[in-house]
Formats: sequence, structure tokens, C-alpha cells
Amino acid sequence: MEISSVNNNLVKETVKLQQKKYRTEKFLLEGYKSINEAFLSGIEIDYAFVLAKKADEYNFLGDKLILTTEQVLKKISTTDSAPDAVAVGFKKEFDKNILKSAKKVVLLENIKDTGNLGTILRTSVAFGADAVVLYGDSVDLYNPKTVRSSVGNLWKIPVFEIKDFNELKTVFKDYKRIATLPRSENYLKNYKPEFPCLVMFGSEADGLSDELINFSTGSIKIEMKETVESLNLSVSCAVVLYKLFL
Amino acid sequence: MEISSVNNNLVKETVKLQQKKYRTEKFLLEGYKSINEAFLSGIEIDYAFVLAKKADEYNFLGDKLILTTEQVLKKISTTDSAPDAVAVGFKKEFDKNILKSAKKVVLLENIKDTGNLGTILRTSVAFGADAVVLYGDSVDLYNPKTVRSSVGNLWKIPVFEIKDFNELKTVFKDYKRIATLPRSENYLKNYKPEFPCLVMFGSEADGLSDELINFSTGSIKIEMKETVESLNLSVSCAVVLYKLFL
Repeated sequence: MEISSVNNNLVKETVKLQQKKYRTEKFLLEGYKSINEAFLSGIEIDYAFVLAKKADEYNFLGDKLILTTEQVLKKISTTDSAPDAVAVGFKKEFDKNILKSAKKVVLLENIKDTGNLGTILRTSVAFGADAVVLYGDSVDLYNPKTVRSSVGNLWKIPVFEIKDFNELKTVFKDYKRIATLPRSENYLKNYKPEFPCLVMFGSEADGLSDELINFSTGSIKIEMKETVESLNLSVSCAVVLYKLFL
Repeated sequence: MEISSVNNNLVKETVKLQQKKYRTEKFLLEGYKSINEAFLSGIEIDYAFVLAKKADEYNFLGDKLILTTEQVLKKISTTDSAPDAVAVGFKKEFDKNILKSAKKVVLLENIKDTGNLGTILRTSVAFGADAVVLYGDSVDLYNPKTVRSSVGNLWKIPVFEIKDFNELKTVFKDYKRIATLPRSENYLKNYKPEFPCLVMFGSEADGLSDELINFSTGSIKIEMKETVESLNLSVSCAVVLYKLFL
């Protein structure tokens, strides 16, 4: 198939996926790496717009492939320079029962930075987390920037959205629940985690809510020089997960 | 003083600082936190455009203060939503002799991501580095996005640009020089650093050059699951500096 008009209906449908409200079932994958990693991870691809001259590299997509122009790719992509291909994939649902047997779970509360979320997912996979929970009012997991900054790791780890505190309480009642808190008296370097373990991070702007601090069974802080007020959230996560999970 | 026309000459001069080629002496500071932290760190402020109704918060700037409108701030700022103030500061030069007595130095080769650079500076201050070296063809330290993502830490640590390999060799000849390399056989967890120590990181796209790998006296790698190809650069830096420097 070939589509070269930016006014084509499928092009218009695809552009809509740039907005969260339209990403109920499907989402955008931009560029070779994202598309290929998603495909290899078992994400079902609905269709993919591919620059005609690059079609050879996307043979693995079979009949999902639609040949197109740079103009169309520019219109449907969210990056400054258009990628060689933009695919539409079906969102992957994970079974929450995984949390019954998980040992190492990361919780992010009210996370707003799409880039940070992607980076944290990438780090969570690297350092051996079993699952990630987005608690409260968080950025959309399938935001194109999150997809990009996860660098193909979005589907390698189960991610669950939990909005209700009672559900959170039920699911993690038997876990050790560690709050990362600047005012904690326990330094990370000396901390010996017990499992199953839920490590909880607040948003960069507000930190953890009192609700989650009260829900915690322990707390830690990362050692740092007094001249620095705080760390970037994805940096904090990385240091804590490296130390506790790996 | 008050300036409300976007066609004013000083407004036009200020806008130029969005481009690297005009940032030979001065650079942009956007928003209260950046301006205030720079001021407290001894950065000389040339002048500052401040939203008239927010003037009270910027009293510390004294006669550097120029009252202005949201329209002007929108024009001179680089962020999507205009901050309450944009100041122009003079770049700070550090004395390279600091490197003769430094113990813990971070080297970044060919770093291209402005956000990563700011985050790494913030982390370097937090974990006790004495200086940062930008080697090769790196992004401009005074890029507005770097200034922002350093969250006020740009002036808390000396940063040096070194472009010449012979200079690098001379300056760091007596240092232990550690290459961070995915193919290294030394795991970070067991590594005992000796000081003075230069820890070297390559760019996210290309890693360290052969030149710097040959220049190293040792190497390390960060432990991680095989399913992940690599980590975000600011994440790698954070984990390594936390482990080796703190």
C-alpha cells in the first residue's frame, strides 16, 4: 500500500494519537529502534508508515507496511526531524497478579515528566525491577516522549496504573514499603533491603505525599553534599535501584 | 527602568543570546530559581527583565532590574511558557590550576544532550566531584537548556573545556584514569578507586573514543540485566559517581 497525501484519512487518524485522549487502545512508535524493539517484544503492530526508500529495513512488518513520503511522516511524528517510519501499536495490558509474586517493585507518585518516566523504565529494567506502579495522577505511559526515552524498554517490564489508595494498600500489604525521603535518617549506603520490597518515589516538584509516607514501613535518603538541594528524579531512582535491587 | 516594546534594542540584543555564537561573554538565566542561585553563587548579573508585578521578588537585583511585560519575556525566553524574569549574566571563568589539586574529576567526551549535561553537573556537585571536563566537541555549557537542567548548580563546580589531547595528557598525567566501558571486565560494585581520579564517560551515541580508552589506566562497567542495551548517560554518571566519589 502507498499513501502520500497528508489529507488521507488514515494519516489524520494517526495524527490524533499524538493526543492522550485518543490513545485508548493504540499509540505511536517513532523510528526504527522503537518499532523494532516493540515488534520483538510482542507488541502487536496495527500498521506502519515507512519512507518508501527505507522499506527494505522494515521487511519484518510484512503487510503492515505502508509506503509514504517525508511530508506525511513529518505530519504524524512528534519529533523535530521526521523519523524514517512511524508505526501504530496496540497497548499491552499486563496481569496485576504478577504483583503477587514480584520481589522488587518501583512506585512513582504523580510523575509529570515524560522524559523522566521513560528513563526510569529503562533503568528499572536494567537494575532488575519486576514491575513499576504509576500511582496518582501521572503522565501517560504511552506519551510519544516516554516511548522514545524508554529506548525500547517500555514493554520489557509490567507497568500498572493504580489510582486508588485502597487498592494500593491491598496489593502491597505484605511488602516492605520504603519511602525515599530527603529527611530520612537512614542512609542508602548502609541500608539492607528485605523482599518483597516496594520502593516509593515522589514527584520532582512535591516529593512523596503524606498518604504514602504514612503507608511506608521504612525510609531512606541518598547521601549528598549540602550545597545541592535535590537530585533529578531519574538520577535518584537509578542510584537507589542500583543499590537496593541489583 | 521600564521596557515594554519587543522592538527595543536591548530586547533584540538579549534574544541573540539564545544562539551559541553570541554567547562569548554573556548568557541567559531564565526564571527565579536560576537567577537567584546564580546571584548567590557570585555570577555577575548585567541586567534582568522582570515582569512588573513580580518586581518585589527580585529586589536583590537592585538597579539591574528592568520592568517589562509578558510579551517581552516571551520573546527573550527559550521556554514554552514565559518565566517571570530573564536575566543576562557574565560567564564565569575558573582557574585550570584547580585541577592540580583536585581529587575527583569527571570527564565527558563529545556530549551532545543539553539536558543530560545540566543533570550531570547537578549530580556531580551532589556526589562531591571537584571539577568537570568537557572534552572534544561538546554542547555549549551556557545553552539555556543546560542552565535550566542544572537547577542552579552550574556555578557550584568548575567546568573546563579541553579540546586538545596533548593538553589533556599533561593535565591528567598523574591521575588514575578510569574508562566507563560496557565491555570492561571490572564490575563497579567491587571497584576500589584511587585518587586523584578522572572518571571518563563517552557520549550516549558513540561511547568513549579509542583515544581516551588508550589513555585510561583502568576501566569499569555498571552491572545490569542483559535485556537492556545501555543506560541513559546521566543515569550511568549518577551510579558511578555515587559509588566511587561519595
